[in-house]
Amino acid sequence: MNFCSHCGAPVRLTIPAGDDRLRYLCERCGTIHYQNPRIVAGTLPLVDDRVLLCRRAIAPRQGYWTLPAGFMENGETTEQAARRETLEEACAELAELSLYTLIDLPHIHQVYMIFLGRLAGDFSPGPESHEVRLFEEAEIPWEALAFPTIERTLKHYFDDRCRELPPGAVRYALHVGSFERWQAPARPD
Amino acid sequence: MNFCSHCGAPVRLTIPAGDDRLRYLCERCGTIHYQNPRIVAGTLPLVDDRVLLCRRAIAPRQGYWTLPAGFMENGETTEQAARRETLEEACAELAELSLYTLIDLPHIHQVYMIFLGRLAGDFSPGPESHEVRLFEEAEIPWEALAFPTIERTLKHYFDDRCRELPPGAVRYALHVGSFERWQAPARPD
Repeated sequence: MNFCSHCGAPVRLTIPAGDDRLRYLCERCGTIHYQNPRIVAGTLPLVDDRVLLCRRAIAPRQGYWTLPAGFMENGETTEQAARRETLEEACAELAELSLYTLIDLPHIHQVYMIFLGRLAGDFSPGPESHEVRLFEEAEIPWEALAFPTIERTLKHYFDDRCRELPPGAVRYALHVGSFERWQAPARPD
Repeated sequence: MNFCSHCGAPVRLTIPAGDDRLRYLCERCGTIHYQNPRIVAGTLPLVDDRVLLCRRAIAPRQGYWTLPAGFMENGETTEQAARRETLEEACAELAELSLYTLIDLPHIHQVYMIFLGRLAGDFSPGPESHEVRLFEEAEIPWEALAFPTIERTLKHYFDDRCRELPPGAVRYALHVGSFERWQAPARPD
């Protein structure tokens, strides 16, 4: 950020009076430009004992497999965002959804929310996907998944699916977690 | 938004090529300025059978009662944001937290996430609160709550607290919901 989106004057990175962190401040009109994390909403679509994955046709991670997901837009709910992304990337609609994973990515200012649901009808690649197909657990391309959030969501699902549960317990309850910067693989010095 | 925050040229509201919704586009440098919903993170702090509320010292809804909550910042997790807001508004710390309500507000581009947890230690008003105190259920100032998200979260809590449950069921599981524009009280014509 270099210029004030309100009045066009240059902005300065400073801690405003009464605040405790750096913000882009316009010294002409006084606007403080706050920057906040974004939500990535998506789904884990199920067909019998298989899950739907999309092979990405766009950067980042082009060619790698992902769950349908993308940035939530203004004016929609998290569930609407997840359904829209599924329609856009896999031309697929889903029956009832439940929130399944919520994963914080503070180092890149994102919060993932993946909903679980059964596929209702057909599917095919949308413009952002090379390929869309169903995978049994043994077929999941673990080494070719696009993002760690996708891997974690799939692991939770396959763990939950075979877990022994006490009566009355919910099988696919919400999992909350995070990937902190320090969890990234260490780089060789 | 009037000017490009990258290069300072005027922006135009248009549907970019390959997109399907209006964006602020800079015709000089080509930057598309996406706008996305923000997360409001907060807590429902418990002390025995009482809940902690803060009376707001700032707009909007100054003088009304709220749970400690505010906009999530870049670089933190949702839980860290909820804890920070609780410390700022009620000078309070909490033991283990669990996500309790997730409420979409698509008409104002916000997603509320309120975590439930036991208070650990003292509390006092921070600079954004006139007053912080504990309320039993019968004392809740229902007519003087700041926001419908706060009312709904408190109602869920008191409902869940006295609900009969099957063995093994979780008492304070996540509630997901939304306030759509059409749910606002009808205005007289």
